[in-house]
Amino acid sequence: MHNTFGHLFQITTFGESHGPGIGVIIDGCPSLLPISEQEIQKELNRRKPGQSAITTPRKEKDQVQIQSGIFEGKTLGSPISLYIANEDQHSQDYKNIKDLFRPGHADFSYQQKYGTRDWRGGGRSSNRETAARVAAGAIAKKLNLELAGVDVLAWVDQVYNIKAEVNIETVTEKEVEMHITRCPDFMASKKMEEAILKAKEEGDSLGGAVKFRIKNCPAGLGGPVFNKLSSSLANALMSINATKGFELGVGSQVSQYKGSMHNDPIILRNGKIKTLSNHAGGILGGISNGETIYGSLYFKPTATIKKMQKTVDIHQKEIEFQAQGRHDPCVLPRAVPIVEAMLHLCLADHLLQSVSANLPNLKRFFSLPG
Amino acid sequence: MHNTFGHLFQITTFGESHGPGIGVIIDGCPSLLPISEQEIQKELNRRKPGQSAITTPRKEKDQVQIQSGIFEGKTLGSPISLYIANEDQHSQDYKNIKDLFRPGHADFSYQQKYGTRDWRGGGRSSNRETAARVAAGAIAKKLNLELAGVDVLAWVDQVYNIKAEVNIETVTEKEVEMHITRCPDFMASKKMEEAILKAKEEGDSLGGAVKFRIKNCPAGLGGPVFNKLSSSLANALMSINATKGFELGVGSQVSQYKGSMHNDPIILRNGKIKTLSNHAGGILGGISNGETIYGSLYFKPTATIKKMQKTVDIHQKEIEFQAQGRHDPCVLPRAVPIVEAMLHLCLADHLLQSVSANLPNLKRFFSLPG
Amino acid sequence: MHNTFGHLFQITTFGESHGPGIGVIIDGCPSLLPISEQEIQKELNRRKPGQSAITTPRKEKDQVQIQSGIFEGKTLGSPISLYIANEDQHSQDYKNIKDLFRPGHADFSYQQKYGTRDWRGGGRSSNRETAARVAAGAIAKKLNLELAGVDVLAWVDQVYNIKAEVNIETVTEKEVEMHITRCPDFMASKKMEEAILKAKEEGDSLGGAVKFRIKNCPAGLGGPVFNKLSSSLANALMSINATKGFELGVGSQVSQYKGSMHNDPIILRNGKIKTLSNHAGGILGGISNGETIYGSLYFKPTATIKKMQKTVDIHQKEIEFQAQGRHDPCVLPRAVPIVEAMLHLCLADHLLQSVSANLPNLKRFFSLPG
Amino acid sequence: MHNTFGHLFQITTFGESHGPGIGVIIDGCPSLLPISEQEIQKELNRRKPGQSAITTPRKEKDQVQIQSGIFEGKTLGSPISLYIANEDQHSQDYKNIKDLFRPGHADFSYQQKYGTRDWRGGGRSSNRETAARVAAGAIAKKLNLELAGVDVLAWVDQVYNIKAEVNIETVTEKEVEMHITRCPDFMASKKMEEAILKAKEEGDSLGGAVKFRIKNCPAGLGGPVFNKLSSSLANALMSINATKGFELGVGSQVSQYKGSMHNDPIILRNGKIKTLSNHAGGILGGISNGETIYGSLYFKPTATIKKMQKTVDIHQKEIEFQAQGRHDPCVLPRAVPIVEAMLHLCLADHLLQSVSANLPNLKRFFSLPG
Repeated sequence: MHNTFGHLFQITTFGESHGPGIGVIIDGCPSLLPISEQEIQKELNRRKPGQSAITTPRKEKDQVQIQSGIFEGKTLGSPISLYIANEDQHSQDYKNIKDLFRPGHADFSYQQKYGTRDWRGGGRSSNRETAARVAAGAIAKKLNLELAGVDVLAWVDQVYNIKAEVNIETVTEKEVEMHITRCPDFMASKKMEEAILKAKEEGDSLGGAVKFRIKNCPAGLGGPVFNKLSSSLANALMSINATKGFELGVGSQVSQYKGSMHNDPIILRNGKIKTLSNHAGGILGGISNGETIYGSLYFKPTATIKKMQKTVDIHQKEIEFQAQGRHDPCVLPRAVPIVEAMLHLCLADHLLQSVSANLPNLKRFFSLPG
Repeated sequence: MHNTFGHLFQITTFGESHGPGIGVIIDGCPSLLPISEQEIQKELNRRKPGQSAITTPRKEKDQVQIQSGIFEGKTLGSPISLYIANEDQHSQDYKNIKDLFRPGHADFSYQQKYGTRDWRGGGRSSNRETAARVAAGAIAKKLNLELAGVDVLAWVDQVYNIKAEVNIETVTEKEVEMHITRCPDFMASKKMEEAILKAKEEGDSLGGAVKFRIKNCPAGLGGPVFNKLSSSLANALMSINATKGFELGVGSQVSQYKGSMHNDPIILRNGKIKTLSNHAGGILGGISNGETIYGSLYFKPTATIKKMQKTVDIHQKEIEFQAQGRHDPCVLPRAVPIVEAMLHLCLADHLLQSVSANLPNLKRFFSLPG
Repeated sequence: MHNTFGHLFQITTFGESHGPGIGVIIDGCPSLLPISEQEIQKELNRRKPGQSAITTPRKEKDQVQIQSGIFEGKTLGSPISLYIANEDQHSQDYKNIKDLFRPGHADFSYQQKYGTRDWRGGGRSSNRETAARVAAGAIAKKLNLELAGVDVLAWVDQVYNIKAEVNIETVTEKEVEMHITRCPDFMASKKMEEAILKAKEEGDSLGGAVKFRIKNCPAGLGGPVFNKLSSSLANALMSINATKGFELGVGSQVSQYKGSMHNDPIILRNGKIKTLSNHAGGILGGISNGETIYGSLYFKPTATIKKMQKTVDIHQKEIEFQAQGRHDPCVLPRAVPIVEAMLHLCLADHLLQSVSANLPNLKRFFSLPG
Repeated sequence: MHNTFGHLFQITTFGESHGPGIGVIIDGCPSLLPISEQEIQKELNRRKPGQSAITTPRKEKDQVQIQSGIFEGKTLGSPISLYIANEDQHSQDYKNIKDLFRPGHADFSYQQKYGTRDWRGGGRSSNRETAARVAAGAIAKKLNLELAGVDVLAWVDQVYNIKAEVNIETVTEKEVEMHITRCPDFMASKKMEEAILKAKEEGDSLGGAVKFRIKNCPAGLGGPVFNKLSSSLANALMSINATKGFELGVGSQVSQYKGSMHNDPIILRNGKIKTLSNHAGGILGGISNGETIYGSLYFKPTATIKKMQKTVDIHQKEIEFQAQGRHDPCVLPRAVPIVEAMLHLCLADHLLQSVSANLPNLKRFFSLPG
């Protein structure tokens, strides 16, 4: 339950940062989906450390191995196991923190819950776990594409106090990937890069926001009450490490609108029922309405900083310490593929769920030639 | 799956706005919890319509009936069924909207999903469903109190562009309940009331934000990866109708902090490990750390307004229409008990989940005299 | 979790024997299924007490009320709530057993688990709960019929030492329903009736077996490993009160076959791949193969008997007692509709699950005109 | 959902017979359980092929690797990943069956469901998957021991028409393990061995029954309605390959008892409430009552035989074929550790579930020093 996401397209991740490896089991992926190791690796490479001057210099190849569920290039319908061996671990970097609780980290809360923790590199609470999500997300992405042509894009929208200006409808993956910041606004990206390098130099860290957009999401995804597409997306994205806020559509700016301004008028466009504006962000009553889904996700600054900090050790002694190790001064650029992965995983699950909503559609399905 | 919330303390709600009634089944509530109809009714009365000049004039008694699971004033351990008959329905108010899709409402997305909908008062998508959550929440509240003294409080923090100033740590339920706005800041409450009455007069509506605080939440609640307390709270609260954003701790303001400012130093206070500040909002690595949990939830303006709006009918004809019926010009004041209920439901579930985290604790449990 | 059955077609039952009523929520039923109160009532009438001289003389109308989820004669896709008020309760019949543990009943195990129990008529452990299953089963039956023409039949195959001879492939519902025993073998039925009346006279009770058959079950239902159709059927049927054994195909007689006799040869019949024999009972590797599914379910004799029995009371005193109240001397005849209901519920769940097994089928589904 | 077992102590298995390897993720195991690779390997060795003259000569080391969740010899509370590489695969043995459906196997039903299958050694439907269950079962066994001293034993009770006579209460693990048949009745074991060797010689196969016993199972395990301990055990055991029947207590023999003989009188023994007889098999109303739990599980003869069989190929041509490869003429001896594993997994899940049944117990738990 704790390490599983999804109901029908269901993933379970495992692994500690400095253990033998990490991985994920995907259960519920339909059979006969063509998928290659390369397609999975491509997404992992976007997340992996050491990509640029503004990410951690840690070197992990993050080479995925398919252990089951894929046969002759296609899924079997059985569980898909993806494994990524850990490699460039400097566990000794963490010996000095073995006996203390790092501020902003999960050390204390894990210790309270489990009475133990793997102190090497954060163990299970490490951001490394998200590599498993990205690997699984690559399969969800392929499924979403095959089933409905779903198109997901995320980008860095804010770093510290630098906000980008991006046209949600027209921004492209190429525009995002051309900057090491993954911010498609050239000027903002430049400033973000400088701010991150400055924070790195100061031994400090920065937070920010990732924005996302989903095109071609069919209308009708999402449960009506508790399994809303909106609450599912919130659940999916707020499960990413370091997230502190989620917004859908105009989000927290909603309080500046009156109803008469916020309601999106419904119109006909090329014979299809569409909305004129899209303040709602593509979801009404928890169910997708066929418009573009968009929103934001806020990340706190990386908890690991090289400045001196006050804390307490496991012997209940107040101490001061300075973090060692190799860390990202800002998680945002590497968070983009993780956000996209969680969006794909959430959508794949809801796509499969949507199939049994409606009897006339189901009856046509059961009477298909097969 | 779609109408169920929680894993161990699990609720399933049912009912349409203008059907015979609505209700909830609570499965997983431990036996021997003392609970009375009065305790449940008290919470329902805080949510029910017709409370004041700034809520809908609709009159629903919202009288709860216990159908099962409680015997001689205490829970049996079997499912608790709570039922609320619908009463003051003016279904004819909705006849004119039977064949059209109201902007800002779930009419179109429901129709796309199910190929049908109960057009009377919004059917399942009506805010009326939340009465069932509030009834169930009253039982979760009692359980949380008995198990750990958990104390939950929510209040209206913003209506339209009026923001309250409230001390999160010291604000009291009495201060909240003394205003019909449920905003504990006297001056802000006054302005909110005026703004809501003005919007009502104009046939318009306003959104805003509810803030919440949880005290005495034990450290150790929440799963480490997907079942984080943070993502669970996001899921719980974003399942409430009309919500557009969720924030934990400093939330979207997080991007204004550097790591050195945002990390909460860990200190000893009266021999206990605490944090000096609380930017994190009581959750680290997805697991509660024993500090106060707080955050915000954003609501859009009520979709039903009396102004003329453009839309399309089910025959694909563009039309103009004006809503009839009795509605809240601002959902915020009545949202407060719903937010509290979802928080209690989420916490009760995590409290029960936390019991099996740790073998030494479990062993002591199994060797208890019983 | 404890009171819920199914993953996609999911039911949650509630209610104690002598509380206000019992009921069930069905979540996940597709929209636009035509269903009437009469169709549900018809199944309830087959289960209700007081049907004949060989069942309990208790009189319950078991009148179902639809509280939600059905609008203008069709399902909405929202949860369906069915409620049955309790009526002919003689709670005073149970006062004398309030403080003791009845042999063969759940009194002691409930008390150990919950530290309390509703002693009136067995409370939650009463067979009365199965009325809720039968009501839900009527909806599953309709769905299974509409989707795939699934045809389920159960009958009494054995009472005490009297075994029927029945042709599994050709027996009809009419043949079953024409006898108050629900045993379609005329001679055996006669003997069973006599044996039951004799047991009733003696204040004793009899057990036996129900046999079932499923025709038109599509090939491909069931998960490959833990969610097998076989283990799901076992789970479904062994959740019925008083069951002690489950068999699929030749069942426990399997140990009399060698592999060369037991394997069902695969042949072509009218251009379709079929098996020559059907020892497997229609399921291979946990997945249906399109042949008739059949098996048996064993019930113990009713625990309530009018003979003097030894037991212990809650004050740990050894005592003797004699049951009062009105009970079935043999549960088998009334068990038949319960078995059918559980089979339908299990099959409906697996039918919906099967939809997402296979990408080419799904792609056709998503490209349907809708 | 399809490859997962359990709610709180939850396992998900993966892997095909001739893929890179098989494995299991265990989620929900409490932290600080001491467990070593040796304890897991010991159980795997009891299941592995090539143990004796009556099992398949296939040689698999079945060497388990711990990939996560265990640190310094104890569980972390995070998911435990166990991996077993596949080694002695003769995939070419299966080339001749690539295009045909083997009678008694899952080839046809898989093909119907998924439109594909891994034909090498049965792929996912292979009994090899159960190694993953046995590995996970070793951890459940340790947990059950630590929490409640639960003691599980299974043995071969019947092979073909040879039935053992075994005292359920007194039989020991040593008596079981001293025979290669795993039948503790010396005379019966001898005959079984001969029968299996004879079947092997004839190219045929035999079925039979495994019996099991659970001692020290605390009273109070099991849900009252759908999550009964009895139905959970049925679900757990009937998920094992080749099973055709499940019995609890006196099982299908129940129909030979009248209620007055079958009810177990309740007595005081050493100041404890016990039953005089134990026809019920330790479970009443679906909930354990503290007595010994026992029952039987029936297995069909191995589907793979060396005799000529009729079948159809994927081109819909009727053909005859003879199986190649190395197989068990009787699965019973190697099934014993699998049955024990599933029992342990089921019990561990219910032990953890039982903790939240009862408020007074929970309150004591939350007020523990921790």
